[in-house]
Amino acid sequence: MEGEKTMRKESRIVVAVDESEESMHALSWCLSNFTAKNDNSTNTTLVLLYVKPPPPVYSSFDAAGYLFSTDVIGAMEEYGKELVHSVMERAEAVYRNSVTDVNIEKKVGSGDAKDVICHTVEKLGADTLVMGSHGYGFFKRTLLGSVSDYCAKNVKCPVVIVKHPKQN
Amino acid sequence: MEGEKTMRKESRIVVAVDESEESMHALSWCLSNFTAKNDNSTNTTLVLLYVKPPPPVYSSFDAAGYLFSTDVIGAMEEYGKELVHSVMERAEAVYRNSVTDVNIEKKVGSGDAKDVICHTVEKLGADTLVMGSHGYGFFKRTLLGSVSDYCAKNVKCPVVIVKHPKQN
Repeated sequence: MEGEKTMRKESRIVVAVDESEESMHALSWCLSNFTAKNDNSTNTTLVLLYVKPPPPVYSSFDAAGYLFSTDVIGAMEEYGKELVHSVMERAEAVYRNSVTDVNIEKKVGSGDAKDVICHTVEKLGADTLVMGSHGYGFFKRTLLGSVSDYCAKNVKCPVVIVKHPKQN
Repeated sequence: MEGEKTMRKESRIVVAVDESEESMHALSWCLSNFTAKNDNSTNTTLVLLYVKPPPPVYSSFDAAGYLFSTDVIGAMEEYGKELVHSVMERAEAVYRNSVTDVNIEKKVGSGDAKDVICHTVEKLGADTLVMGSHGYGFFKRTLLGSVSDYCAKNVKCPVVIVKHPKQN
């Protein structure tokens, strides 16, 4: 059995997840189409990648001239952590319900989503990148669709762009 | 057995093929990743779609003022037919060598590649569209990458954009 295991082809699929339902649908699609049909000849690892926005550089005053208190900054950072936790929990619910035998790894990056996704895909030597088609993140911190556009152009491996069925 | 067959889920994957090696690589990727792991619960049909440029409206004179003879027009049309034949033959060589049990359908469209691809995907109710990332066709009749960009934005199903490994 050990011998068999070493013969298995390694496959690493990065799934970019965020707060959107679309990215959860992309994960679900990936589980159904890539891994459910796993015939034991491939050892598939799904890397769930969530990218937090970079730590903000707070100016002492906001646009209206109010000073941010450390309480507010602390609360925002706490909210960011909760967001990561919440996204990963939702992702877990998606893959727990699937019938696939697949390894799951979770990664949290920080920075510009499109750069972090491309960099991670390259660093891991991923075989496929799966992502939703729309803006990345609750705060719509990038223009609609621009992250998936950018990644499709810049990563070297095949990219799967999945749309939410509600948009159909 | 008949009963079993009717229970199988139908899955229809459109693969856009053209004269490029990249599109043959996309077909090969599709056979390895979608259909090789087929567990008999899904009846997969691969629709190979080739789009010819629309029949040209010949002006009587070309830019240099020469009249096109009917021989030249005939030769160009003949060349177009040979191109379809050659692309489909190359595609056949790719899927004949794969070990998959998959239904193959061939379709030849005519017109603007991006419109024909999107229209065909919608008309067939395809589950997935697979295509290369680059220009569609020998004559580079569209800007680099614009066909896959357009299709990724406009079709409703998941889109897989596959790059040729040589570009890596």
